[in-house]
Amino acid sequence: MRKQRGLLIVLSGPSGVGKGTVRKELFSQPDTNYEYSISMTTRLPREGETDEVDYFFKSREDFEELISQGKLLEYAEYVGNYYGTPLDYVNQTRDAGRDVFLEIEVQGAEQVREKVPDGLFIFLAPPSLSELEKRLTGRGTETDAIIQSRITEARKELEMMNLYDYVVENDEVERACERINAIVIAEHCKRERVEKRYYEMLKENV
Amino acid sequence: MRKQRGLLIVLSGPSGVGKGTVRKELFSQPDTNYEYSISMTTRLPREGETDEVDYFFKSREDFEELISQGKLLEYAEYVGNYYGTPLDYVNQTRDAGRDVFLEIEVQGAEQVREKVPDGLFIFLAPPSLSELEKRLTGRGTETDAIIQSRITEARKELEMMNLYDYVVENDEVERACERINAIVIAEHCKRERVEKRYYEMLKENV
Repeated sequence: MRKQRGLLIVLSGPSGVGKGTVRKELFSQPDTNYEYSISMTTRLPREGETDEVDYFFKSREDFEELISQGKLLEYAEYVGNYYGTPLDYVNQTRDAGRDVFLEIEVQGAEQVREKVPDGLFIFLAPPSLSELEKRLTGRGTETDAIIQSRITEARKELEMMNLYDYVVENDEVERACERINAIVIAEHCKRERVEKRYYEMLKENV
Repeated sequence: MRKQRGLLIVLSGPSGVGKGTVRKELFSQPDTNYEYSISMTTRLPREGETDEVDYFFKSREDFEELISQGKLLEYAEYVGNYYGTPLDYVNQTRDAGRDVFLEIEVQGAEQVREKVPDGLFIFLAPPSLSELEKRLTGRGTETDAIIQSRITEARKELEMMNLYDYVVENDEVERACERINAIVIAEHCKRERVEKRYYEMLKENV
């Protein structure tokens, strides 16, 4: 029987909502069966980091070459270095029938949406706005002005929800993970994804 | 916060695929949180059966009146009696925020599809055609001709898969139930179903 192509699962959401925590919890579970998408970067490897495991390390020249060839699903520049998601790696993994998991900022997710219309876009949402404000405030010792601008930014990011297929409330990390896993199982059962297999089965057995 | 309207979950599939077994397993699980849709019938109550629990018992006249008023989601006549799904009961339960679960034949599911476009249609499929044939054959002591006509019928029913949103393979009853539960969780996370709540939240907290 034909193997189903792997999904591209994109987890995003406003700053402070807990994307990283949810992703770490997902990948710490023994039965999680997604490939974590390895990012590409122009920054130098830190001690203990391995190429093609922690990151794909590239020179600035190579990275810009890949950008111009459209070989990055999404990218951004941050403190003088590029960070991005290599398209070939994602496609090869999906072609091998493995689901790829990407955790990115909302700006990156917008870029991916344009390039991968069949991607699975999951928006991680706070249980309430006040909860999100609490999390943004509780992070450190920033001034009120910084906190206020973060909250304004988070509100804008919340409105970007309309670009997503699913919204998962991050009321508890474990429950959020359960919902994400359920979404992936459900997507694999979508009729459009499996019917070909059955129609071939019907043809074979006349 | 606004409560989400309950889903209408329709489980169907070819004869012999194991719809009843899967439904019974689902409803035997302590954390299953669906309302099982109570059917309406013109047959007389058997001993121990209670009106509005086992069935809604109706006279033939009343049933036909409800048919003409469009008050049945689907119905069929079987051995001289009507059986059907009352629309009001389904709507009231959904309005109360509860998911309604319906297990019906593919012909009934077609009728429901027309009346409830936002229903969740799950097609239970055999792992293979030979497995389905084995199950149809293994049922009793029927002649080859009867078995052959059942297989032909089941093939036709398999082709009706294209009317469904999801296809769940019934390789093992427990795994099929897990997939169905996952589909329901995922559907509750669909952006269209929850975004209103968040946009209201954003408005409230300016």
